[in-house]
Amino acid sequence: MRLLEERIAREAMVLGPDVLRVDMFLNHLIDTRLLDAMGREFYRLFEAERGRITKILTVEASGIAIACAAAAHMQVPVLFAKKGAGNKTLDRETYSAVIRSFTKDSLTNVSVAKRFLSAEDRVLIIDDFLANGAAVRGLREIIGQAGAQLLGVGVAIEKGFQPGGADLRNEGVRLESLAIVDSMDPLHFREQK
Amino acid sequence: MRLLEERIAREAMVLGPDVLRVDMFLNHLIDTRLLDAMGREFYRLFEAERGRITKILTVEASGIAIACAAAAHMQVPVLFAKKGAGNKTLDRETYSAVIRSFTKDSLTNVSVAKRFLSAEDRVLIIDDFLANGAAVRGLREIIGQAGAQLLGVGVAIEKGFQPGGADLRNEGVRLESLAIVDSMDPLHFREQK
Repeated sequence: MRLLEERIAREAMVLGPDVLRVDMFLNHLIDTRLLDAMGREFYRLFEAERGRITKILTVEASGIAIACAAAAHMQVPVLFAKKGAGNKTLDRETYSAVIRSFTKDSLTNVSVAKRFLSAEDRVLIIDDFLANGAAVRGLREIIGQAGAQLLGVGVAIEKGFQPGGADLRNEGVRLESLAIVDSMDPLHFREQK
Repeated sequence: MRLLEERIAREAMVLGPDVLRVDMFLNHLIDTRLLDAMGREFYRLFEAERGRITKILTVEASGIAIACAAAAHMQVPVLFAKKGAGNKTLDRETYSAVIRSFTKDSLTNVSVAKRFLSAEDRVLIIDDFLANGAAVRGLREIIGQAGAQLLGVGVAIEKGFQPGGADLRNEGVRLESLAIVDSMDPLHFREQK
């Protein structure tokens, strides 16, 4: 997606070999217009699944905005997995998985209430970043626990030099990335049709 | 806002004297259509500030969706305060405050990067819930540290039987709540013009 690639090229900051900071337009300060354009692009990319998707699944916190932007175009609800131990407002009956965050160097438990995901659901996963694929794997595990069907995965920025994207595609997952960064220094994007 | 009140009356669950669970349409599973309607209503309520607001400020995670919905109508960026200690992708130079969560019975540090908030900003705070007002106070403290101006506060659901809303109004804060729950058992909403 040209608009996103241009924005990354102009503003993103490379911090070390594997950290790309896009907090000036995506995951701290959010450019509302760009967000809507990204949502519309996911809608276009998953056109073949239109009418089949029952829910978009993401993980708090930085996946929520982009998931809602896609959902607004697709007219489906968003379910976001919650991090950490339960609080008073979350169900006890949950599906859960453990996600290893490479950015934060930590293990995080994520969960969704069983009431909100069932074997009838056909799910699209949406997230802001894909690097090693840990978050997507965790969400896929949750979808599996519910007996629901995974229709595809959409991410804003894929780090093509890390293995998550290639691994998922090799496993037959339909993965669409709005921008694939194949190298950070110098910055280079993978050509996509 | 009638649409939200009806939804609360039909689906929300009262768990104890001060916990109202709305995770079936607002803060776990998100009804995308209702979310957009709430965003449009905030746009209408803050009509007088149209063109003056430079940023919407909220706090992760459950404030992000509603803040983005309002921002889409107002055409301004969203800045969401991050919780907890820093990670590799967040600046070291931050404005921060401590928020006491009554739901979780915990203290949480929230922060925003200094780069994204300045004395030129005129800020609207948007959040999902207002009870004791702790989150709004924390965000207001951050706005104060930046020397920015607070134009108003919009929340989806105010618990009118807790003191946050009345305290903020008494202090002269322009506060708009889409629904004010004055009692939970039986459920009763405050009349608003």
